[in-house]
Amino acid sequence: MRVEIINTGTELLLGRVTNTHLGFLAQSLFGLGLRVERQVTVPDGVAIAEALDEALARADLIIVTGGLGPTSDDITRDATAEAFGKKLIFHQDILDGIAVKFARRKIPMNDLQRPQAMVPEGGIVLENPNGTAPGLIVENDKTVAVLLPGPPRELRPMWNDSALPWLRKKYADRLGPVHEVTLRILGVGETRVQMLVEDDVRALGPVEVGYCARSGEVDLRFIAPDEALLQKAADLARSRLSDAIYTEGVETMEEAVVRLARAAGKTVATAESCTGGLAANRITDVSGSSEIFRFGWVTYANEAKTSELGVPPELLAKHGAVSAEVARAMAEGALRNSGADVAVAVTGIAGPTGGTPEKPVGLVYFGLAKKGGDVQTLERTLSPVRETFKYMASQIALDLLRRALV
Amino acid sequence: MRVEIINTGTELLLGRVTNTHLGFLAQSLFGLGLRVERQVTVPDGVAIAEALDEALARADLIIVTGGLGPTSDDITRDATAEAFGKKLIFHQDILDGIAVKFARRKIPMNDLQRPQAMVPEGGIVLENPNGTAPGLIVENDKTVAVLLPGPPRELRPMWNDSALPWLRKKYADRLGPVHEVTLRILGVGETRVQMLVEDDVRALGPVEVGYCARSGEVDLRFIAPDEALLQKAADLARSRLSDAIYTEGVETMEEAVVRLARAAGKTVATAESCTGGLAANRITDVSGSSEIFRFGWVTYANEAKTSELGVPPELLAKHGAVSAEVARAMAEGALRNSGADVAVAVTGIAGPTGGTPEKPVGLVYFGLAKKGGDVQTLERTLSPVRETFKYMASQIALDLLRRALV
Repeated sequence: MRVEIINTGTELLLGRVTNTHLGFLAQSLFGLGLRVERQVTVPDGVAIAEALDEALARADLIIVTGGLGPTSDDITRDATAEAFGKKLIFHQDILDGIAVKFARRKIPMNDLQRPQAMVPEGGIVLENPNGTAPGLIVENDKTVAVLLPGPPRELRPMWNDSALPWLRKKYADRLGPVHEVTLRILGVGETRVQMLVEDDVRALGPVEVGYCARSGEVDLRFIAPDEALLQKAADLARSRLSDAIYTEGVETMEEAVVRLARAAGKTVATAESCTGGLAANRITDVSGSSEIFRFGWVTYANEAKTSELGVPPELLAKHGAVSAEVARAMAEGALRNSGADVAVAVTGIAGPTGGTPEKPVGLVYFGLAKKGGDVQTLERTLSPVRETFKYMASQIALDLLRRALV
Repeated sequence: MRVEIINTGTELLLGRVTNTHLGFLAQSLFGLGLRVERQVTVPDGVAIAEALDEALARADLIIVTGGLGPTSDDITRDATAEAFGKKLIFHQDILDGIAVKFARRKIPMNDLQRPQAMVPEGGIVLENPNGTAPGLIVENDKTVAVLLPGPPRELRPMWNDSALPWLRKKYADRLGPVHEVTLRILGVGETRVQMLVEDDVRALGPVEVGYCARSGEVDLRFIAPDEALLQKAADLARSRLSDAIYTEGVETMEEAVVRLARAAGKTVATAESCTGGLAANRITDVSGSSEIFRFGWVTYANEAKTSELGVPPELLAKHGAVSAEVARAMAEGALRNSGADVAVAVTGIAGPTGGTPEKPVGLVYFGLAKKGGDVQTLERTLSPVRETFKYMASQIALDLLRRALV
């Protein structure tokens, strides 16, 4: 079954509004066993008709968002009726329903509302409790088109409460479950991941293998026709990649850290120089993090490292702030001052300036201190681009916490 | 001139990743006087070729994102060469450049990197300082295709630094200058901004007025046919909105803070509870911030507020951690312990849990302490959505620093 989405709205193509419909609908459809094969954004107006004609030639299911309102640029209803070769029929009950909504809000209703009561012949009306324009389902022998209003707070409940149940029933005999897993990997490059798993996974059977790489990480995705094959593929990848897989599914690194710390009943602390608070910020993005995160320091200056974390000035003078020795002392200081079970420290050169031949921009040291354990240090050279550097360094810092909590 | 965008990536059509490229590129192209007429998302693989062929038949400029990486599903380069009827030529210098990046990060390079060094005949190579895959520009008599890597951290600088200047030059005779100014406003609502300026600005002449509102802020944009009219409009808005305008153009709040502090030769410090390090993180996103930012605390727990910032336990017991009194004490402690000229403190309830009828989720207090000055406090109730709350609270905290530095 081929599914396509048409998003209408000039504001999307001006970059004023981000398209959140695609993600919402795609996730929901995926749960139904359907995948979106193509999505197109067109401006309000005649381009909608063009996009509909194209989709109609290819797709079994078309979902159109936006253009159902009462103003002159809302032409989705008319264009769909035309594309399907259906007449528009006036529905008095729809107009009456809109009149009730206006009366409730004590706003006079005008004639411009009338187009919203027009329905392509044989079409199904989807109620809109959160707005005036109803949704519509129009079909011919081959294709179903679902028309949804543009505002997310109208579209989402209408989709969940009306469109989705209708589709589930309509396609009951054609929908199988989709078997998918995403393994999230840190510290092994995209091509290395491919070399380690792809050929052997493909040899197992018809597994779709996908990669999504960003700044030192890779999401490795398998989609398979059955659960047993999927699990074989995942197990193979797990055995090859081992603890480089920091989480699976949609969980983020920070969510994994908070989950593991809560499960272990442990607290973590952060001492950050070059990451400037990003590691702490990411941990505290997770609801419930206050249970496991209590103290964080952003010791950007040497004096701060000394006064707040007890890093000896001699150590700073001898090795420099960007050194394994200072990372170790920062982690020890953070553990001691916070009373946490695990503390991570980061010190490096975020650039673009401040690098030297011996210590180039991108160089970074990590320290990890555990209650009653040794302090571990780590050296890495990351991107020289400031924001990428900060993100990658925070990711490694969080990964050190994660590994200490497993 | 017709512009189309092709976004490739199965993860977009699975709803795993939100398409932020369209907004970024559309806004940038608009600045050039160009509007995007159509955008399409296709999965990794052969659908890219189909989309390219369709766009090639219609568009003068095609921008393709993603699919330039080294793995088996990255076929944008090949599909574009094919669509334009160009051979792919191996460029040793590109592969050498990739090798340098691997060497720098001390990671062994493998043969799978090689496809990234292939360039369609006559194509222009766009450097990628933030990743391995270079961007490409391919053209024929009618159409230009710009191929950009998928990760936003790679795409954005490449667009700004390489692709955009090239396009500006290429189309110099077809693009009119755009006279545009954006005033960035905090603390005055969108409709209030409109009431304060729109009618009077329109009365000045043919000025296009645009608004972009997000989370308590508004960008007010004027576009005018000439610079004199634009300045009249901007001056009118400046006089009406005064210091609610925190910056103009593309400067961010944190860039404004760092710029003002550097100009004044002052340092700032942060003491954060509910924002969890976000304010510090944003300041340290700015290159050169180490001159003006030296100490930050993330005192998530009450004990941290006491041990690190000297907030008296009695004060916490009497007023609660989320109170003007504690915000004041945190700011005073941060000023004292850091020796900074200005210190800001934030304490609030980020939610989704932890609210009470008296102190609901979203309630937040700010403290601002200045060397030799009074401490100022501020109470706000912000979004109950955790991430939005953190962002808005960090924005207000940074704005307090900004106002203290003017």
